[in-house]
Amino acid sequence: MGPLPPAFARQQGALTIAGEDAAALVAAHGSPLFVYDLAGVAAQVARFRAAMPVAIGLHYAIKANPYAPLLAAMAPLVDGLDVASGGELERALAVKPAGAVSFAGPGKRDDELAAAIAAGATLNIESAGEARRALAVGERLGIAPRAAVRVNPDLELRGSGMKMGGRASPFGIDAEEAVAVVRALIAGGATWRGFHIFAGSQALDAGALIETQAATLALAARLADAAGVAPPLVNLGGGFGVPYFAGDVALDVERVGAALTESLERRADVLADSGIALELGRWLVAEAGVYLTRVVDRKVSRGETFLVVDGGLHHQLAASGNFGTVVRRNYPLAVAGRMGAVGEEEVSVVGCLCTPLDRLGDRVLLPRTAEGDEIAVFLAGAYGLTASPSAFLGHPAPAEVVVG
Amino acid sequence: MGPLPPAFARQQGALTIAGEDAAALVAAHGSPLFVYDLAGVAAQVARFRAAMPVAIGLHYAIKANPYAPLLAAMAPLVDGLDVASGGELERALAVKPAGAVSFAGPGKRDDELAAAIAAGATLNIESAGEARRALAVGERLGIAPRAAVRVNPDLELRGSGMKMGGRASPFGIDAEEAVAVVRALIAGGATWRGFHIFAGSQALDAGALIETQAATLALAARLADAAGVAPPLVNLGGGFGVPYFAGDVALDVERVGAALTESLERRADVLADSGIALELGRWLVAEAGVYLTRVVDRKVSRGETFLVVDGGLHHQLAASGNFGTVVRRNYPLAVAGRMGAVGEEEVSVVGCLCTPLDRLGDRVLLPRTAEGDEIAVFLAGAYGLTASPSAFLGHPAPAEVVVG
Repeated sequence: MGPLPPAFARQQGALTIAGEDAAALVAAHGSPLFVYDLAGVAAQVARFRAAMPVAIGLHYAIKANPYAPLLAAMAPLVDGLDVASGGELERALAVKPAGAVSFAGPGKRDDELAAAIAAGATLNIESAGEARRALAVGERLGIAPRAAVRVNPDLELRGSGMKMGGRASPFGIDAEEAVAVVRALIAGGATWRGFHIFAGSQALDAGALIETQAATLALAARLADAAGVAPPLVNLGGGFGVPYFAGDVALDVERVGAALTESLERRADVLADSGIALELGRWLVAEAGVYLTRVVDRKVSRGETFLVVDGGLHHQLAASGNFGTVVRRNYPLAVAGRMGAVGEEEVSVVGCLCTPLDRLGDRVLLPRTAEGDEIAVFLAGAYGLTASPSAFLGHPAPAEVVVG
Repeated sequence: MGPLPPAFARQQGALTIAGEDAAALVAAHGSPLFVYDLAGVAAQVARFRAAMPVAIGLHYAIKANPYAPLLAAMAPLVDGLDVASGGELERALAVKPAGAVSFAGPGKRDDELAAAIAAGATLNIESAGEARRALAVGERLGIAPRAAVRVNPDLELRGSGMKMGGRASPFGIDAEEAVAVVRALIAGGATWRGFHIFAGSQALDAGALIETQAATLALAARLADAAGVAPPLVNLGGGFGVPYFAGDVALDVERVGAALTESLERRADVLADSGIALELGRWLVAEAGVYLTRVVDRKVSRGETFLVVDGGLHHQLAASGNFGTVVRRNYPLAVAGRMGAVGEEEVSVVGCLCTPLDRLGDRVLLPRTAEGDEIAVFLAGAYGLTASPSAFLGHPAPAEVVVG
């Protein structure tokens, strides 16, 4: 198993989340249950602010966790919200002015473009065709679209969980084509907002992030020089990872911040007045979430002990190893009532779905458990419930609750 | 790409589903759209009945597709419905008498056991602990539970997509322990219903299925002899696969039926009065479903052409290669307006989600397309919408519609 997040790693006895007893939360809200620690989210934002240059803006990518109370708490802490659909746009506009909302994503439908333009949110334009459609929609509405260009960079983030640059991609406009689209947008009457350049995600290697951020700034400067217009904002993407698995080491954010300070000091003249932002999702919220699920059955089959829980991959697809992972590895788990206890038995923690894919822990060492005990699955704050097939097999939706 | 299902393989021009024009369906119901051909489902049931011995019962595993209108059409065609949760139980009881409904699945909660016992549905008991809980719940309700024992067989279905037997498993009771649980259930006052033995799924090899069915019958007979009581019903499981990928060849169901006729004739005396059933999900409905999604953007990045569609993995997780597959392969796709046309260009069909995982077709050869064209993803009738993370990124739910 991977390491428990810092807020939980040294706990003894009953698990608490922002000081609240996990078992009491389950008793109050039912099992399975997602608990999000808002104090933990705020602390992560504070850590970012302390580590990064003052001039760096922080955007939250709400796809990581769009739960409304969490989003409401996040909105005042960050400088912008990044959305990926018309549905997310609505959620963002409920808690943040449109001028601080940007919309990226391939395949934006015309009705989504219209909603963003009408509200005054920024479109991160993903292709020449989308630029044409945005201008046409703006024309029809009589409103100039606020538009940035998302660039498919000619570089990739080394060691990232998902590579999104340096290759053919559905995301953004190839760097070598971007200038023409910038010119077309400005000529078409769009309000020019700058660049969005996202090279990868889930990186734990500070050196790789430092290198990518410097290269991304340089790319933005080259594109701005070529286009002959300074970008009001350069969104450098995110890519900050969190440790999920055995051997993972947390990202040294302070080192990234120190290097970014130097990069900003050395930035090209054309970017002198540009805002610079980072867009983070997972890193801000993953560690603040805990998924609690109760053991319904304990059984031994041919020498292997199974804890069958009332949750499963319908709420925690990524933790089951079925979302973007090639080799299945275990997220950190614990018995919620016995934090810090030594492992006494090797068990497999399986969900209640009738499929062998539904495995939350594969032969993990846990203290002894009984039916009724709660298992805690950590790192459940990002890409949990909304990134899982929650209707699969007709189980009830789990509750979500914020604490802290 | 894999082969188009027979109903679509020879179509020319505009795609029709049960005689209805696909583009007209999208115009009427929106895009993306799931279309399920009820005539196709009925034809598949008829093919099963013609191929199998008359004495074989047919159960539908509703997890494959629980869409209510499809389920309502299926119910009168089959002898039983198999469910995997309290939610599915409710859906089944709305269209079928409780005596024809059985409930399998590890981790049944007490409230689920109570709902099944109160209704008179059959519980397929998954562990000794669950047997105890079912008896206790029945005692509390004053109703004898109808109980079968799900057996984890000491054999596996060769070549199946998901192996569910022959190993340590969260599903069922190890064959060597099953007799004790049968005795405990009967001694505890349960109404004895028989055995449920499921050795695997998604098998295309008739020989493997024949062998497994014969071995499963023999196992049921051995267990019945050892328990000293005949099973009213033996559910042999399913495992009938459908061809998804290049090189897959459809299952020879008629050969399976002929062999099962012989196996039944030779069955042990203890099974002479037992009902024998097969439980199918995917095979009955997969080929009857088509997912239609419109091209929103067409772009070229570094030499690769992308068709960005308004659907994606949030509706078709398995087709994107992110659900239980190790190596990503392409489901059969077509341009709905140009069935039978020769492939003119190599394209990647990607969904509208902001993740590189969202790819429905990886470098497939299709006739030339334009924005607004519909792409058809076949084999969308099973494990489609409900097996996908439909809330991911906040897109609207797709419509589902039945035709035929």
